[in-house]
Amino acid sequence: MISGVLLDLAGVLYDGEVPIPGGAEAVVRLRDAGLPLRFVSNTTRSTKQAVLDQLARLGLSVRSDELFTPAQAAREWLSQHNRSPHLLIHPDLVADFGDPGDRAGKVVIVGDAGEAFTYSALNDAFRVLVEGAELLALAPNRTFKDADGKLSLDAGPFVTALEFASQKQALVLGKPSSAFFLSALASMNCPEAEAVMVGDDAETDVAGALRAGLASALLVRTGKYRAGDEDRFRPGPTVTVDDIAAAADWIIAARNG
Amino acid sequence: MISGVLLDLAGVLYDGEVPIPGGAEAVVRLRDAGLPLRFVSNTTRSTKQAVLDQLARLGLSVRSDELFTPAQAAREWLSQHNRSPHLLIHPDLVADFGDPGDRAGKVVIVGDAGEAFTYSALNDAFRVLVEGAELLALAPNRTFKDADGKLSLDAGPFVTALEFASQKQALVLGKPSSAFFLSALASMNCPEAEAVMVGDDAETDVAGALRAGLASALLVRTGKYRAGDEDRFRPGPTVTVDDIAAAADWIIAARNG
Repeated sequence: MISGVLLDLAGVLYDGEVPIPGGAEAVVRLRDAGLPLRFVSNTTRSTKQAVLDQLARLGLSVRSDELFTPAQAAREWLSQHNRSPHLLIHPDLVADFGDPGDRAGKVVIVGDAGEAFTYSALNDAFRVLVEGAELLALAPNRTFKDADGKLSLDAGPFVTALEFASQKQALVLGKPSSAFFLSALASMNCPEAEAVMVGDDAETDVAGALRAGLASALLVRTGKYRAGDEDRFRPGPTVTVDDIAAAADWIIAARNG
Repeated sequence: MISGVLLDLAGVLYDGEVPIPGGAEAVVRLRDAGLPLRFVSNTTRSTKQAVLDQLARLGLSVRSDELFTPAQAAREWLSQHNRSPHLLIHPDLVADFGDPGDRAGKVVIVGDAGEAFTYSALNDAFRVLVEGAELLALAPNRTFKDADGKLSLDAGPFVTALEFASQKQALVLGKPSSAFFLSALASMNCPEAEAVMVGDDAETDVAGALRAGLASALLVRTGKYRAGDEDRFRPGPTVTVDDIAAAADWIIAARNG
């Protein structure tokens, strides 16, 4: 049986500013079926509020407590560990970090910085790591589907570059971190064994959710999906479906076991 | 016995434009001892001719056929494999590639591009890889000692980023590629078992040379050397010495076995 649903955003409900057909209806149908929803996104190019505003523009009504972002997880981590951040993130995301005040140690935080990934910004971050800082990755995604429809470099390759140079391993805060999936499930009191994830990334969404213990994970053939992705990473998807509408059909049919 | 010597350049004979004390004399002493020399450098920020000019300014007389650079190895590879290059290299190195003319396939060539490692240049290279190009790394070095005396990011982290994003493995042309060491040795008819390498990089110079089968590899405590480097990579150096002058002492004393 299914008693909670996690949904990825970019590539599942929209591509850039273009809604994926049937997305808003699928969300309504899942809600009408009595299924609690959480939205788990690795998008790190805009603040949480900007993501909520974008969802509203697309006709999706999502509450703030239903949306889980890596920046939110990072802010909690910084506070728990008494660290101040050295940010290597998109300028539009900086507002989500506020002023951390005076703290004991430094940590380098890497998001999808886009054009802000310059040599000198990467080198500055590397030098902070050499001086002893820890390395946090908001997201380890390899690629995302860009505005021109082609794949572009996401945060993951740059995290890997800093790991290689500093010989430190990054702690990943967004998907596929099990803690990220589990905190979203915990917020709706949904056990892993009764949860399903829907995403377009066979690695961070699907394999990540299954490794975190979720009962099932659906791969949609929208967004960054490329033919053969279902066989490219382990564990593979429970099922691969055309889009979020088909995913909602599958979930509603399967929800009573 | 020792019948041939490979010397690294940056960090061994000079730091930037500053000669390392005793370097020029050490080269003369090795030549006077009858030892053939080859200079194997992973420096990819300037043409071969510019490196030779720099050595001359530092009072080191080095013939063109004594200097082995990754760009030279790459040009040979391109010709043998009938490929045209998509260059992600330092602007000062472009001249070493000339005009390859019309060729069958594309290959992405990554060197230490410095500030030319922009997001869009990296993303362009990634997209060429996605379209089917192979990936060549002129050098996989993690770091180099920068003009301010601190470590900075070398080509390796960016090669790793492109490998991670494209899920392709780079072919390395410079050190620690065994082919690179062996072609330098072959040019002086020196068997691996009678060869010694001197470098400041415990990974690409020392471990690389020993993996290629060289009898010994000396690590100098100049250039990018940091305390503990001798224990950081396997195989470790035959011996760690203060500088190129001490390395020359060791080699001259050991040359007759």
